Amino acid sequence: MNQQVSIVMGSDSDLSIMSKSATVLEDFHVRYEIKICSAHRSPKETHMFASSLEKRGIKVVIAGAGGAAHLAGVIASYVSCPVIGIPMQSTYLAGVDSLLSVVQMPSGVPVATVGINAAENAALLAIQILAVSDKKLQFQLVEYKKKLAKGVLVKSEKLQRVGYKKYLQSNL
Amino acid sequence: MNQQVSIVMGSDSDLSIMSKSATVLEDFHVRYEIKICSAHRSPKETHMFASSLEKRGIKVVIAGAGGAAHLAGVIASYVSCPVIGIPMQSTYLAGVDSLLSVVQMPSGVPVATVGINAAENAALLAIQILAVSDKKLQFQLVEYKKKLAKGVLVKSEKLQRVGYKKYLQSNL
Amino acid sequence: MNQQVSIVMGSDSDLSIMSKSATVLEDFHVRYEIKICSAHRSPKETHMFASSLEKRGIKVVIAGAGGAAHLAGVIASYVSCPVIGIPMQSTYLAGVDSLLSVVQMPSGVPVATVGINAAENAALLAIQILAVSDKKLQFQLVEYKKKLAKGVLVKSEKLQRVGYKKYLQSNL
Amino acid sequence: MNQQVSIVMGSDSDLSIMSKSATVLEDFHVRYEIKICSAHRSPKETHMFASSLEKRGIKVVIAGAGGAAHLAGVIASYVSCPVIGIPMQSTYLAGVDSLLSVVQMPSGVPVATVGINAAENAALLAIQILAVSDKKLQFQLVEYKKKLAKGVLVKSEKLQRVGYKKYLQSNL
Amino acid sequence: MNQQVSIVMGSDSDLSIMSKSATVLEDFHVRYEIKICSAHRSPKETHMFASSLEKRGIKVVIAGAGGAAHLAGVIASYVSCPVIGIPMQSTYLAGVDSLLSVVQMPSGVPVATVGINAAENAALLAIQILAVSDKKLQFQLVEYKKKLAKGVLVKSEKLQRVGYKKYLQSNL
Amino acid sequence: MNQQVSIVMGSDSDLSIMSKSATVLEDFHVRYEIKICSAHRSPKETHMFASSLEKRGIKVVIAGAGGAAHLAGVIASYVSCPVIGIPMQSTYLAGVDSLLSVVQMPSGVPVATVGINAAENAALLAIQILAVSDKKLQFQLVEYKKKLAKGVLVKSEKLQRVGYKKYLQSNL
Amino acid sequence: MNQQVSIVMGSDSDLSIMSKSATVLEDFHVRYEIKICSAHRSPKETHMFASSLEKRGIKVVIAGAGGAAHLAGVIASYVSCPVIGIPMQSTYLAGVDSLLSVVQMPSGVPVATVGINAAENAALLAIQILAVSDKKLQFQLVEYKKKLAKGVLVKSEKLQRVGYKKYLQSNL
Amino acid sequence: MNQQVSIVMGSDSDLSIMSKSATVLEDFHVRYEIKICSAHRSPKETHMFASSLEKRGIKVVIAGAGGAAHLAGVIASYVSCPVIGIPMQSTYLAGVDSLLSVVQMPSGVPVATVGINAAENAALLAIQILAVSDKKLQFQLVEYKKKLAKGVLVKSEKLQRVGYKKYLQSNL
Repeated sequence: MNQQVSIVMGSDSDLSIMSKSATVLEDFHVRYEIKICSAHRSPKETHMFASSLEKRGIKVVIAGAGGAAHLAGVIASYVSCPVIGIPMQSTYLAGVDSLLSVVQMPSGVPVATVGINAAENAALLAIQILAVSDKKLQFQLVEYKKKLAKGVLVKSEKLQRVGYKKYLQSNL
Repeated sequence: MNQQVSIVMGSDSDLSIMSKSATVLEDFHVRYEIKICSAHRSPKETHMFASSLEKRGIKVVIAGAGGAAHLAGVIASYVSCPVIGIPMQSTYLAGVDSLLSVVQMPSGVPVATVGINAAENAALLAIQILAVSDKKLQFQLVEYKKKLAKGVLVKSEKLQRVGYKKYLQSNL
Repeated sequence: MNQQVSIVMGSDSDLSIMSKSATVLEDFHVRYEIKICSAHRSPKETHMFASSLEKRGIKVVIAGAGGAAHLAGVIASYVSCPVIGIPMQSTYLAGVDSLLSVVQMPSGVPVATVGINAAENAALLAIQILAVSDKKLQFQLVEYKKKLAKGVLVKSEKLQRVGYKKYLQSNL
Repeated sequence: MNQQVSIVMGSDSDLSIMSKSATVLEDFHVRYEIKICSAHRSPKETHMFASSLEKRGIKVVIAGAGGAAHLAGVIASYVSCPVIGIPMQSTYLAGVDSLLSVVQMPSGVPVATVGINAAENAALLAIQILAVSDKKLQFQLVEYKKKLAKGVLVKSEKLQRVGYKKYLQSNL
Repeated sequence: MNQQVSIVMGSDSDLSIMSKSATVLEDFHVRYEIKICSAHRSPKETHMFASSLEKRGIKVVIAGAGGAAHLAGVIASYVSCPVIGIPMQSTYLAGVDSLLSVVQMPSGVPVATVGINAAENAALLAIQILAVSDKKLQFQLVEYKKKLAKGVLVKSEKLQRVGYKKYLQSNL
Repeated sequence: MNQQVSIVMGSDSDLSIMSKSATVLEDFHVRYEIKICSAHRSPKETHMFASSLEKRGIKVVIAGAGGAAHLAGVIASYVSCPVIGIPMQSTYLAGVDSLLSVVQMPSGVPVATVGINAAENAALLAIQILAVSDKKLQFQLVEYKKKLAKGVLVKSEKLQRVGYKKYLQSNL
Repeated sequence: MNQQVSIVMGSDSDLSIMSKSATVLEDFHVRYEIKICSAHRSPKETHMFASSLEKRGIKVVIAGAGGAAHLAGVIASYVSCPVIGIPMQSTYLAGVDSLLSVVQMPSGVPVATVGINAAENAALLAIQILAVSDKKLQFQLVEYKKKLAKGVLVKSEKLQRVGYKKYLQSNL
Repeated sequence: MNQQVSIVMGSDSDLSIMSKSATVLEDFHVRYEIKICSAHRSPKETHMFASSLEKRGIKVVIAGAGGAAHLAGVIASYVSCPVIGIPMQSTYLAGVDSLLSVVQMPSGVPVATVGINAAENAALLAIQILAVSDKKLQFQLVEYKKKLAKGVLVKSEKLQRVGYKKYLQSNL
């Protein structure tokens, strides 16, 4: 069976963050591929990669890059499927450069931008997109949201039970 | 037949921008509803609206708000379907406050953020999401992209034919 | 007797900062509750929590959250009592995103915003608000202010007495 | 009977914005005074004014200033009652300088900061503070919030009834 | 004879600024071409255009784009010749987004960035680059610099001669 | 008798702002010269001008420039007398670029920076510096400060006398 | 003999930076006092301190504070002598809040602002101001500037003599 | 034979970054000199250095400085050859001050700006400029670009072969 999501990053220095997208997709049993492809250092490969995506059955792309972060935009210029952009934290400007480079796309070519380094949210958004026509994924998302809320509730109850001093000590 | 996209904005002062989402959806023959719903001024209505969305068959939400722009995030907290956030240009800070309020969501609750005031791109992203399981929309998107490229080409050829001085005069 | 102040935070990762609000309230013998409640991950619980606050006799809310920090604004949308917002320092943008998300509220729904991570000031502001109709708290605040000024004076006198070199060494 | 709220601004160029605080207080039948007092150009008068506030029965201060906006902070340093700061839009930096000068107060001296130019919200916050011990104001605030929500609902219903094109035309 | 400089912009809305590059090149008798080419809306054409540049004898590229401004970076990824990037003033963020998208390129792929909207400086930089191996252009640049300095001197002398009041009146 | 203050600006487009420095100096009967001198377009003249300043008896320099605003810093590198820098409002970045270019000088070479476009304050600072050894100027400054405070007081009294509605009308 | 310079800071946490001003003044044999005085936590003491400065013969004030940094501005509002403001690096916003709070003063009340944490430059500026009427200090400043230039030259010559690899090793 | 490139920096604290320019030039066998020269601390030497550059046959200058970073602009004001500016990361503002001080040059005096701390890209840009009239350097650049692309491809293939978990472990 084909991969449905393509995770692509500009450099292997982004992998420790980008791999969180992969982990979330695995948790939801969504098939994905994961690649390194630089809009600037390997433009021809990126051109070919972007041109091949839809032919290979990819339905959503997750692209992460930092600084003058063009990877998501370049891929979005080639494909008709949704492209999710992750602005990576950058060495000098904390990811502000990445964020503006990813989100401020011209009219006609959207990139679905998530927060700085938000690789988990990128994967969840990809799953939400696939779930539009996939009842099973919809069900998993509903369960996921319940677990999220439950997690908060459990912590809040613990906090009220033990008080903030013990809570803080127990988390050290 | 049901609406597939819900366009919602925090204030009717956002309508002149948000209506561009509606126009693009009409161009692609996608059924939508359009509402005003304030996360801050009508929270109970927003709560009910958000809770009703998926039951009513809405598949993608486009939410626009400005300043401390919580509308997209509030809706995203209730639903499992993709929520696209448009940071509206704000009176004092040009939309920087809106952008950060929309895009910097916590892990677990993504908002697919587009550029400041980018209502056309929000609609295109909604269409790309629906097109994942809709061949007809896919085809329309491919045609749309061809027209985009054609438009640039036509202008470039005119520029080279008439020179920049005449081009600028003809655009006055 | 009822709690007068509700301290609420979006995540237990905020507790080491938010607990400073609790400590100050204890110093002034103001009864408070302390909870975790996420506008985004547990929206229904937040909706119920916000709706219950005034019925339970809470007079002031202190809400801390980071990033796209909607918690204070969401609670403020439900209640008529004052809501104090603490923009938490955020991982990537130092709290600028939190600050703008908390302070730039639309007309009709104010949040009394204090500085980034300023949990002590949030508690003092809550006490100042309660003190409007509480002579005893007013008296305590006057004493507190005297102690603040005294603390500066003592340090200044020490600095002039021992000189800056010894002062710096004694603080190592 | 005494004034309960003191509205003070750094310059009469702030009056067209600051007068919105006065209008809201009038709507809620809250007695107020309104003054011009510059932390920088009339420091001795500001010192005397700040020292007199609580003796004269003022319960909440609303202070607006722009640029290196010290007025709210200077008053907060003298009084024990809540001080609400309005960062005024500034000529060159849009109010970012004002916002940071007002909100980033040191520990011990909070200023309840509202959004840039948010004079209406400052007045509402003052009313919320007074309402903590004033049932009549509490009732008025509940009514106010209902009207806010109603206003949104009416507009949303009109939008759905007439469509966005007619709505935009009718608002020209 | 071949063109030496290629001026390219992302949209014809940039032409009124970008044409200043053309005018300066004309003043120095440097042959150029001027085109519209969008990294995002016409990616295949941009790919072909970028691949053709050096074969056609182009020695320096001047590329202007705004927002998520990828044009200069995309071209730089294909060519070995110097690429000068002009960050165009953008509608919402004044060109800060454009500047960061153009200048913060990854290691290995430089873009020679000039100031926001600085189309004249881009052309002068292109001429300085060509002048490295062109004595005639070097001579013209020296003359140009003399004229620049002379222009300042003439104005300064006029200011001292007529005084600032008359100077300001004469410039109305 | 010699000039005591040299007012210098990078371009005659700064004159309408910079002339405010001249007007204030005239009000205090301080002799000054006013020149145009560009750190970038007339570097040799700037070098000579800066080298001549102290020989000609100039005691304080006021330098205004915008964008990459190097004029104040360049002059400060040559002279031992105080140099006051005015960051001029810039076309695209509102003067943030100018401010940082003027104020963030390296250790060893201070520039006394005033606010964006604050030409009046620059002149007042120059006068304060001259007044350190000039009793007459000291006296004038004390009178000036009294007038400043008086001006605020008069406006505040008018505001309380006529009310904000009439005050606003009378200022139209 | 009287002190000529008053060094004052908002908190003893600023002392490790502010003491650099003291060291430079000592190097130039300028008499100074050094105090802690908080505009916000000890306003009455600050009021008295500011009012006493000129009576006690202080000629220049150096004031350092962080965050909503009002100390320099508050003192400047009381005195006619030059006030030099040092924006201290702040915990969350790197000193941007401090810088804007110090430099953006209203017309009529200048603060001579130096760079973030630039305590050495503040002292040098104070010396330059005193040197306007003190030939001995002028001479010392000229010597200081020669030493600055010499220091750069010596390092440059070493770099060319030993090459960058050895230079970097020798500095480890 | 003469040096073709002059690498110059404002302080030896920049050497660990600036030396990367030297290393890249060595890799391409381009002769260079490397100097320390401060626009602010050694202005006369900088004046002489800048005036001598072209007489000594230098063809491109690479200048790095931080904070109020004037070095590149000062040199550009003297020479007709291309000047490449590297904004150095600054202690307090991450290099934003340096970037704006370098890139926002006035019309007539361009500086070819690269990213913050981007010393490798500055050298590559210098080589691209020299390569305009040097076939051998052109060839080397083509090879360099191939190696860049190859490097990305090799990493991407490894990632797909071993999976992200092993890849991350192998890079620890």
